[in-house]
Amino acid sequence: MNTAQAQLGAVLAAGGPELSRLLHRTEERLAEVAEGHGAELAEHATGTLAAGGKRLRPVLVFLCAAGVGDDRRVAAAVAVELLHMATLVHDDVLDRSELRRGRPTVFADGGRLAATATGDLLFSRAFAELVTTGSHEAVRALSAASSALARGELMQRADAWSEDVTPERYLERCRHKTASLFEASCRLGALFGGRAELSDPLGGFGERVGLAFQMLDDVLDVSGPTERIGKPRGADLLDGTVTLPLILARRMDHELRELDLRATVVDPARAAAVCDRIRATGALDEARRRALTHVAEAKDSLADLDIPNDRRRALDLVAAGVVERYA
Amino acid sequence: MNTAQAQLGAVLAAGGPELSRLLHRTEERLAEVAEGHGAELAEHATGTLAAGGKRLRPVLVFLCAAGVGDDRRVAAAVAVELLHMATLVHDDVLDRSELRRGRPTVFADGGRLAATATGDLLFSRAFAELVTTGSHEAVRALSAASSALARGELMQRADAWSEDVTPERYLERCRHKTASLFEASCRLGALFGGRAELSDPLGGFGERVGLAFQMLDDVLDVSGPTERIGKPRGADLLDGTVTLPLILARRMDHELRELDLRATVVDPARAAAVCDRIRATGALDEARRRALTHVAEAKDSLADLDIPNDRRRALDLVAAGVVERYA
Repeated sequence: MNTAQAQLGAVLAAGGPELSRLLHRTEERLAEVAEGHGAELAEHATGTLAAGGKRLRPVLVFLCAAGVGDDRRVAAAVAVELLHMATLVHDDVLDRSELRRGRPTVFADGGRLAATATGDLLFSRAFAELVTTGSHEAVRALSAASSALARGELMQRADAWSEDVTPERYLERCRHKTASLFEASCRLGALFGGRAELSDPLGGFGERVGLAFQMLDDVLDVSGPTERIGKPRGADLLDGTVTLPLILARRMDHELRELDLRATVVDPARAAAVCDRIRATGALDEARRRALTHVAEAKDSLADLDIPNDRRRALDLVAAGVVERYA
Repeated sequence: MNTAQAQLGAVLAAGGPELSRLLHRTEERLAEVAEGHGAELAEHATGTLAAGGKRLRPVLVFLCAAGVGDDRRVAAAVAVELLHMATLVHDDVLDRSELRRGRPTVFADGGRLAATATGDLLFSRAFAELVTTGSHEAVRALSAASSALARGELMQRADAWSEDVTPERYLERCRHKTASLFEASCRLGALFGGRAELSDPLGGFGERVGLAFQMLDDVLDVSGPTERIGKPRGADLLDGTVTLPLILARRMDHELRELDLRATVVDPARAAAVCDRIRATGALDEARRRALTHVAEAKDSLADLDIPNDRRRALDLVAAGVVERYA
């Protein structure tokens, strides 16, 4: 068992049998969605679904929506996971990724046409699931998040290879690209937990956790090691994605500042060399420190909330798990 | 003025100043959406929006929703048009199309990453617009349509190069890929026109018009002429899309039946030769005849409906316009 699995185990233990039951129902419903919309989707989506993942977003929905009826909570969890999966399927087309979590991607199996359409269909089903809850507020939160995800991708594209991405712009991008769906998961939880007044604070908790998640992911891309991240270091550099470690390192190392990514980082060996150079500036430590600040703020924000102690503890463990994943 | 424009003029005249006002508001709102979600979307979407098109789906919404408040009707029209645009932007990525309606596509301008994200964002905004109406029924109709569109694409992919696509399977694909959004436009109109009881019959009208639209489009791909369709004949054949003309022709010409598309139709010249052969079987006439049957049924279905005569006449003109486009 790796650290991430151990951490999820701790979250599940803190969430008790209710959380396990809800996650089980989420899996069942996800499988129904994959099988209920034609042979083509079944063929392409079943593998993606089975590949699983930590179901971090559904966990957030459930932990923020304790002790109320199952159906709407499960619908919300299924919706956020479908939306997440849709973005993964599209990302794999864009990155031409053949493998995800050790399984062939939809792109690898069916080509880019099938993968684009599969992503679109998963996307549509996310909304179809959520509309069954009868909550406009919820559909609004999901459409805001899904717009933000797409906008984050567009920002990342616009920033590609750029020499003057600021830390603020980077953070804004992370907020759109990743934190928005963490935030929406918590908001939906608050809503369906009958605690709409907690939507803002729990949404804020989710956003901070999501920011840290993305920031630490970007640190890991530079720090490696390869066997841990399942791909060569510096994959972001190779496709021109300018992340916080490079942004910070450029301030301290003028050769990095002058570096034309497009011309220099042309293969994994060059990318690894630039990663080493970034590390030498201390930028990785600084980026990690900034991420941990968001985790600490997320945890702090829970302290004053009027939620049961076991839920606070479980949410705390989720925040800790995001760090643990990169320890 | 070409025939299609003349036809639209006739529809506008029949719809009166109300229709013109609503279409104008739709354009304004579409421009607001394009400009209100970041510089990146504004850059990519403004061209797509300005390229226009006939706004056929918004017209259907308005003609099916006469004489009630503007806001919800405009939201519905904007939503269906955004969804339509999202699919066009994604289609252009998949087909690697550089031009649409004489303008560079998002794919040509921004590359496949920007275009995929732009499509996703337009998609999200479609739902965001519609949720402002406060109607679950409406959001449900849109998510059903958007799932159907994606599923139609998946079916088309699964059928590519196939030698045994039946006319029924082809029709099912058209229903998903094209007719579903025509149907949803009419349903949304009925709903926001305060005539929910007309949702099924008007939805049925839209579906038949959409089927005819796709079927005639597929005839045109084979019949040309090139200067009319703005691309070489047989583009569908080149990417393995098996449409009704080929399906019918294969029943009458054993050489076509034996033809391995993938091996034979390798360039526009070969595609044109196969188009000639399809035409020689009379399959184009038969496919056109079948499409016209759907138009006739669509028109007939209006006869018994309790709607004002001017609306009936305008809807009739829309159905006629679909045929006119290919006359």
